[in-house]
Amino acid sequence: MKKMMLAVAAVAGLTSALPAAAQFAKPEDAIKYRKASFTVMAAHFGRIGAMVNGRAPFDPKVVQENADLVAALARLPFTGFVEGTDKGETKAKPEVWSENDKFKAATSKMLDEMAKLNAAAKSGNLDTVKAAFGPVGQSCKACHDNFRKD
Amino acid sequence: MKKMMLAVAAVAGLTSALPAAAQFAKPEDAIKYRKASFTVMAAHFGRIGAMVNGRAPFDPKVVQENADLVAALARLPFTGFVEGTDKGETKAKPEVWSENDKFKAATSKMLDEMAKLNAAAKSGNLDTVKAAFGPVGQSCKACHDNFRKD
Repeated sequence: MKKMMLAVAAVAGLTSALPAAAQFAKPEDAIKYRKASFTVMAAHFGRIGAMVNGRAPFDPKVVQENADLVAALARLPFTGFVEGTDKGETKAKPEVWSENDKFKAATSKMLDEMAKLNAAAKSGNLDTVKAAFGPVGQSCKACHDNFRKD
Repeated sequence: MKKMMLAVAAVAGLTSALPAAAQFAKPEDAIKYRKASFTVMAAHFGRIGAMVNGRAPFDPKVVQENADLVAALARLPFTGFVEGTDKGETKAKPEVWSENDKFKAATSKMLDEMAKLNAAAKSGNLDTVKAAFGPVGQSCKACHDNFRKD
């Protein structure tokens, strides 16, 4: 049984040497994880954006499903900005760590606006969704401008 | 307002030329998305695995949170295996498309086992979680063996 479990862990891309409290075995795992979660979040945020921008027909159910997904995903990337992950395959600026209070405030702002978008998505009303969508995008952009290299 | 929305769409990594029905603008976007969603899913599945394997202390709440996340993520990667995405930065074997019925059956098997794991996670009992964890891992491995290049 244990052998099989270890095989399963290997399939899941883990090492068997994780300290109990660590969520990432190596700095590059944290970087890969945060980039991946941003990628998935952006894709689903973009599906709402397509309707907000009139590039796709408005479908309240699809908006709600994507908003739920984005809400579930939105906190994930920030768990990957751990110490020692400022180098490597990342566009994160040093300010993520040297001005960490500001970075955390910017992520909180995004999460707040995202929660409002999720509430708006449940209204089923396109104008309500539109009104909530812009501030989320602005909060994304603000963080990219200040904390991500071009 | 429209200009701002377009800027927001640009931030979200979208193009403005998406056909209404398309979820991905380019084949490489679909490949990047499916790999990213597998990465995030594997990370959270692995956190359950760490407890199942005794590498982390059992915390029923953490298991349940991760199982919920994995359940939300589990369907996502498969939306990225669209036509025209068999080439490029991918390890997907041609069999994903040439034996698509088998691929779909393998993904259904994984989703079924994952649903059982999610139910087990709500039990708060480690042995119940352990019993449901193995079959999920086996379903991951079966699909990797048959449909993913080494």
